[in-house]
Amino acid sequence: MFIAMNRFKVTRGREADFEKLWLERDSHLSGVAGFVEFHLLRGPEQDDHTLFSSHSVWASLAEFEAWTTSDAFRKAHKQAGGASTEGLYLGPPNFEGFEVIQTVK
Amino acid sequence: MFIAMNRFKVTRGREADFEKLWLERDSHLSGVAGFVEFHLLRGPEQDDHTLFSSHSVWASLAEFEAWTTSDAFRKAHKQAGGASTEGLYLGPPNFEGFEVIQTVK
Repeated sequence: MFIAMNRFKVTRGREADFEKLWLERDSHLSGVAGFVEFHLLRGPEQDDHTLFSSHSVWASLAEFEAWTTSDAFRKAHKQAGGASTEGLYLGPPNFEGFEVIQTVK
Repeated sequence: MFIAMNRFKVTRGREADFEKLWLERDSHLSGVAGFVEFHLLRGPEQDDHTLFSSHSVWASLAEFEAWTTSDAFRKAHKQAGGASTEGLYLGPPNFEGFEVIQTVK
């Protein structure tokens, strides 16, 4: 199993705008081969930003990589741009990919 | 839902030692009230370390906090110390707590 994470530094005071943007978007993820689930997470508050993280869980790294070159990916990320994001972020998102090496339930 | 994460910078060349330590431990998590699941994740390699992350998923922040003051927590973290971890980490783990604000399946 593979988890693709993006870490977003959202400008203090813009948290509601960020959440609205994400909650209203169409992720185009349902039905994609290998897609397991997605979580949007709100993390610690710092002086100048609040950390958010998106987690996309995939059956395998190969299926995640296949998605990144698909039409569904292009559609989902086209939405993410646009004028409404001006001033929303402190810098670009930070991508990190992780392989699951142990699960305890 | 709440996800407690710890980020570990593991010295290059010691990844197998780190994984062995975690895979062999008793997490003392099964049966704890509010515990949902645990994942140990291997992330990106940098020049001087490999990033690992532990994810503990909880039904709520309150149940996670209750666990951190429990006997089970004390037992699990007593194991984590010990001479075998010398030189394993570049610095202490970095804790981050996240609230799940959206789930897509």
